[in-house]
Amino acid sequence: MFTEPKIAIVGSGSWATALAKILLNNVDRIGWYFRNPESIEQFKRFKHNPGYLRGVEFDIDRIDFYSDINKTFEEHDVLVLTIPSAFLDRSLSELNVEMTNKYVVSAIKGIIPEGNQIVGQYLNQKFKLPYERIGVIAGPCHAEEVALERLSYLTIACPDIRRARDFAFKMECPYIRSHVSDDIFGTEYASVLKNIIAIASGIVHGLRYGDNFQAVLIANAIQEIKRFVDKVHPITRDIKSSAYLGDLLVTAYSQFSRNRTFGTMIGKGYTTRTAQLEMHMVAEGYYATKSIHEINQEYKVNLPICETVYNILYEGENPAAEVRRLTEKLR
Amino acid sequence: MFTEPKIAIVGSGSWATALAKILLNNVDRIGWYFRNPESIEQFKRFKHNPGYLRGVEFDIDRIDFYSDINKTFEEHDVLVLTIPSAFLDRSLSELNVEMTNKYVVSAIKGIIPEGNQIVGQYLNQKFKLPYERIGVIAGPCHAEEVALERLSYLTIACPDIRRARDFAFKMECPYIRSHVSDDIFGTEYASVLKNIIAIASGIVHGLRYGDNFQAVLIANAIQEIKRFVDKVHPITRDIKSSAYLGDLLVTAYSQFSRNRTFGTMIGKGYTTRTAQLEMHMVAEGYYATKSIHEINQEYKVNLPICETVYNILYEGENPAAEVRRLTEKLR
Repeated sequence: MFTEPKIAIVGSGSWATALAKILLNNVDRIGWYFRNPESIEQFKRFKHNPGYLRGVEFDIDRIDFYSDINKTFEEHDVLVLTIPSAFLDRSLSELNVEMTNKYVVSAIKGIIPEGNQIVGQYLNQKFKLPYERIGVIAGPCHAEEVALERLSYLTIACPDIRRARDFAFKMECPYIRSHVSDDIFGTEYASVLKNIIAIASGIVHGLRYGDNFQAVLIANAIQEIKRFVDKVHPITRDIKSSAYLGDLLVTAYSQFSRNRTFGTMIGKGYTTRTAQLEMHMVAEGYYATKSIHEINQEYKVNLPICETVYNILYEGENPAAEVRRLTEKLR
Repeated sequence: MFTEPKIAIVGSGSWATALAKILLNNVDRIGWYFRNPESIEQFKRFKHNPGYLRGVEFDIDRIDFYSDINKTFEEHDVLVLTIPSAFLDRSLSELNVEMTNKYVVSAIKGIIPEGNQIVGQYLNQKFKLPYERIGVIAGPCHAEEVALERLSYLTIACPDIRRARDFAFKMECPYIRSHVSDDIFGTEYASVLKNIIAIASGIVHGLRYGDNFQAVLIANAIQEIKRFVDKVHPITRDIKSSAYLGDLLVTAYSQFSRNRTFGTMIGKGYTTRTAQLEMHMVAEGYYATKSIHEINQEYKVNLPICETVYNILYEGENPAAEVRRLTEKLR
């Protein structure tokens, strides 16, 4: 008899919550790992995630809650990771489950700072998980709009396209259209780079450049992303697809993007440290900027926008002067 | 002795005013044609265009004003056209000047409705002007931001690339970077299509689709634009350049775009007629929608977004139902 694979979500943020909401349209029950057992108690009491997207109510009888990472992995076939990349290695440090038969889907956008790896590489190297058993979920998708059930498109990437299709099928619902791709490297890198571009977009906004220049910046940015992913993982892809260009647009043009807000503060003259303190968090693009700079030492792709952000955030260069130099490189 | 070509602007709107401001950085004087002699009197008295971008002050001693179209063309070598495409044929109906030695630069975005031609084709067919003497100015560029001297990038397209360069050079100033291209057909068509896309963008916004879907729409739109221009004028071009993708972005993501505002009203349930009355004007994309639909009868390019707008505006289809059908075609 055919048994449905058991799916668990690993992580407690807004994207985890949106994905749980989506999956519960198509599967009877899901597992859900929270690092903090208290959050589980609160979730059960209030029937919503106490920390994120509180407007989304859940039928808690259809959720198996876990705060033990090994038990979560043991009891499920498909693990959807939503832990911020900066904490992923630490969160999985005690994991000792046999992974051979698992399918791990990354809904994380970021680089694992310890080894400058994208999540797929990290899973492959650390857990010997073959790439055919690694998937990536890409937007363009703000979790907040999923909460409101506004139509969104997701792309599920996996080198084993049947696995991508199976998982994509589980995401289909009245407000989600899902498509598949075999490009986990390009999808992950593009999604990392777009966070750096969003910082750049914020910086120039903070410096009072207008919409005309933003449009030039973003048109150049998608060319920059294409150059990088084509070099790092040279396969045929259309960078104008929703998973790449769409994902860039929803981030760079969003007033709600944390990366863009962080950039705006930098452009207005805040120091990196002060901007981070004011925001009570570190925008993911901040780490990505350094990681991509380091990774690109090997590939030497021309990345004027990413380098401008790096020079401002990590070399203490003056934002106005750096952006002025950038304007000479754009077309 | 080398004589500087004499340049005149033909038209009185905000884009004309922005271009006059830009050119006067590099040339001693310009000619400027206004259809209405009263506007010239007011301009001279107040030292700014009475109708548009009134914050931009001009040294009127450096402007030769004209209200005679033949005299304007006779006394200048380079004519920059900024008259809305719907009125161009009527405005030039009395023109009887020998055109052989003229260089005509179109800053118009639209189709000449009488013959479903882009401006370049119209000038070529009506005035026997060779394409080497026809230029096109493309954005991304809101005139309002030029008035504020916010950095903007322009592309000057002309099959004779030296002419493009000469004119581009005349546009360079602290707030304008200019680049050149030989693609007048692609530039013009892309700029026409983007107005239709902006209407679509407004319609889905009016129907309360969110940012996630907007990003999918625009990513699909640039692919649709590429399909069309590659079919109509098959040369090598990078549709991700500022002149194509940038121009689309600045229009589709602008809250100030008249096409987008018109679309938003349609999405909210206004009839086409009421939306036009409320706006006291007709958005250029409205005419373009019909023209592109007709032109595409020959080329038969797959244009799901443009066809959706056509069905809503000209076939009386229900916006919500049409957009729902469109969502199945996007990826």
